[in-house]
Amino acid sequence: MNEHVLRTAAPGVAPLPEVDHPSSPVAAFGAEEPLRLDAGVDLGPWQIAYQSYGALNAERSNAVLVCHALTGDQHVANRHPVTGKPGWWETLVGPGKPVDTDRYFVLCANVVGGCMGTTGPASRSPHTGRPYALDFPLVTIRDMVRAQAMLLDRLGIPSLFAVVGGSMGGMQVLQWAASYPERVFAAIPIAASARHSAQNIAFHEVGRQAVMADPDWRRGRYIEEGVRPRKGLAVARMGAHITYLSEGALHRKFGRSFQDRAAPTFSFDADFQIESYLRHQGMSFVERFDANSYLYVTRAMDYFDLAADYGGVLAKAFKGSPTRFCVMSFTSDWLFPTVESRAVVHALNAGGAQVGFVEIESDKGHDAFLLEEPEMFAAARGFLDAAAVARGIR
Amino acid sequence: MNEHVLRTAAPGVAPLPEVDHPSSPVAAFGAEEPLRLDAGVDLGPWQIAYQSYGALNAERSNAVLVCHALTGDQHVANRHPVTGKPGWWETLVGPGKPVDTDRYFVLCANVVGGCMGTTGPASRSPHTGRPYALDFPLVTIRDMVRAQAMLLDRLGIPSLFAVVGGSMGGMQVLQWAASYPERVFAAIPIAASARHSAQNIAFHEVGRQAVMADPDWRRGRYIEEGVRPRKGLAVARMGAHITYLSEGALHRKFGRSFQDRAAPTFSFDADFQIESYLRHQGMSFVERFDANSYLYVTRAMDYFDLAADYGGVLAKAFKGSPTRFCVMSFTSDWLFPTVESRAVVHALNAGGAQVGFVEIESDKGHDAFLLEEPEMFAAARGFLDAAAVARGIR
Repeated sequence: MNEHVLRTAAPGVAPLPEVDHPSSPVAAFGAEEPLRLDAGVDLGPWQIAYQSYGALNAERSNAVLVCHALTGDQHVANRHPVTGKPGWWETLVGPGKPVDTDRYFVLCANVVGGCMGTTGPASRSPHTGRPYALDFPLVTIRDMVRAQAMLLDRLGIPSLFAVVGGSMGGMQVLQWAASYPERVFAAIPIAASARHSAQNIAFHEVGRQAVMADPDWRRGRYIEEGVRPRKGLAVARMGAHITYLSEGALHRKFGRSFQDRAAPTFSFDADFQIESYLRHQGMSFVERFDANSYLYVTRAMDYFDLAADYGGVLAKAFKGSPTRFCVMSFTSDWLFPTVESRAVVHALNAGGAQVGFVEIESDKGHDAFLLEEPEMFAAARGFLDAAAVARGIR
Repeated sequence: MNEHVLRTAAPGVAPLPEVDHPSSPVAAFGAEEPLRLDAGVDLGPWQIAYQSYGALNAERSNAVLVCHALTGDQHVANRHPVTGKPGWWETLVGPGKPVDTDRYFVLCANVVGGCMGTTGPASRSPHTGRPYALDFPLVTIRDMVRAQAMLLDRLGIPSLFAVVGGSMGGMQVLQWAASYPERVFAAIPIAASARHSAQNIAFHEVGRQAVMADPDWRRGRYIEEGVRPRKGLAVARMGAHITYLSEGALHRKFGRSFQDRAAPTFSFDADFQIESYLRHQGMSFVERFDANSYLYVTRAMDYFDLAADYGGVLAKAFKGSPTRFCVMSFTSDWLFPTVESRAVVHALNAGGAQVGFVEIESDKGHDAFLLEEPEMFAAARGFLDAAAVARGIR
């Protein structure tokens, strides 16, 4: 890995594997059942790819929806078909886990605008027969949630026992509770916020500009031209990855340690371990993620401002909410700091909702929600167990 | 400014104006007076460009060296020859200012590896007749300081009344005090640290990769090929710029305000004011700064670890130091947080040095040292006034 530049320029790159052949079940909706987007466009035909775990009970009362983060997908608790790695939240979701698939029917769907089987910018436009690319309409967090609601309708699930998600997944949890309060019994938004901050918009914008600056982006038409903006997307991922960690975690894991040697090489090689690590993060990401999806999904997060839909008063989004909430944050998360979760908790309280709040001591930064955090597991388990009793789930 | 991508791709770009024709006085050193670099290379012939303000007194005791930050230069208190803007630290340096040019002889030199007249990667190599590009040896903060010391020798200044600098300039201040204690009467390191953190190395690495990912970088040979990696450098600058601010300042200045309208456009235009601002920062930067210099100077900061030269014990760098110090930091600076300055203060105390420490309440982030910060001005003035009395400067 010791060379100046990212080794991502493979000639004749293969298309992303999931664009046309999703490895998950798909709910397909015809042109007569379009997804109505906030941008004022009807998207159709369209489809949503999902994974499910466990069994729906006779009362249809035990469904749990897991919402994935920016670069996640529906493979929450099974081996990933592209990377071969374990599901991204197997620590939390599975048999005997806090989100217990022996007890609950767990669903996870790829977001609209994504690249793992749900319709997104890499999908073929029915109008042109070509990939949408930048002709794909902008989507919002509310659009993602609306698509999930249509999936639930299709599957015959009138209401959810719980909605759980971290980061952008937590934004969807909050949107679910606001848009469909009667369909959400319990909600766990983790490391999230009710609006994307100026600093977070700024980081996203740099990532998008890195993608668009890559000449292989071809103004979004790279699929047709048989290339991919690998370097630009890798740079975007490297920058974003820093924001998922914390200075403390970086210092503990890497410090100023040199890579494979005791002294600097006085070069632009990946001298420091942190450099080698980041380059690896960038290079592996481009193998599994579509660059245009990265633009669309970051944009959806930027646009998220739940209070704006309620006259600027967040409490109104949750007024009289029947949902019970467990809000969680991490002390070292500077991307979605505790102050953002606290604002949500205040609004929930003001709206009269039932809410618990846990700030978890961790030095792992924003990424903590994906990692081994026993306090998070214990809080989720306790909250869901109590809610299951209240809901009458055995 | 409302378009998807950075508007930096001007065909037939002019070379950077300062590479061959510096607008400042230059001290030139022949091959027989090389700059000995930490990388084990003798750089020569070489030159250092500088600006000076005020007059050296008969005792040669009133010289103040100002050290510039990453993308700064020698034009500290005069109109910039390229941008036409005021000097970058005219708030602090000038007639009647805390660093009073009516009283002190103020010097500021472009760092080695820079692009405003001092020898750097854009300079012509005497061996090949072509720009050095990546054949330029890696430089360190200590090399920058060594070059400045040779300039002082040339100018007949045996010792400095004071060395002042913020950020990378503050690193040079600390290096000056460690390398040449007998030549530094007083030192003001502001918003600095004695070693670059893992997180800061990570941010630099992303910036470098953004530059190197630009095909117009041409493996560093862009000058000869008549192009410049403008988009890559703009992306690097955008990302870095976020780290110079604070979430509080971004929120106060921009919040989630839309650009020129009340609602989102549902596009990748610069919808948010923060996006437009960042794009402007990126685009204006490439007009005045050389991309390879950006690689070299960021690398110099990465390598900075003052304690490493003293067996890992920072206090040894300042053991028995005759210099008096005034260390300053800003509460909202997360790039060089107060904890870093505090570590310097502890080491100075342990080394037996005379030291004062001021943490300034500000929401302006790292950039605060360049902005209107009356408490910083007052502290600098008070400290220098007292030091001038002790030094016998009228």
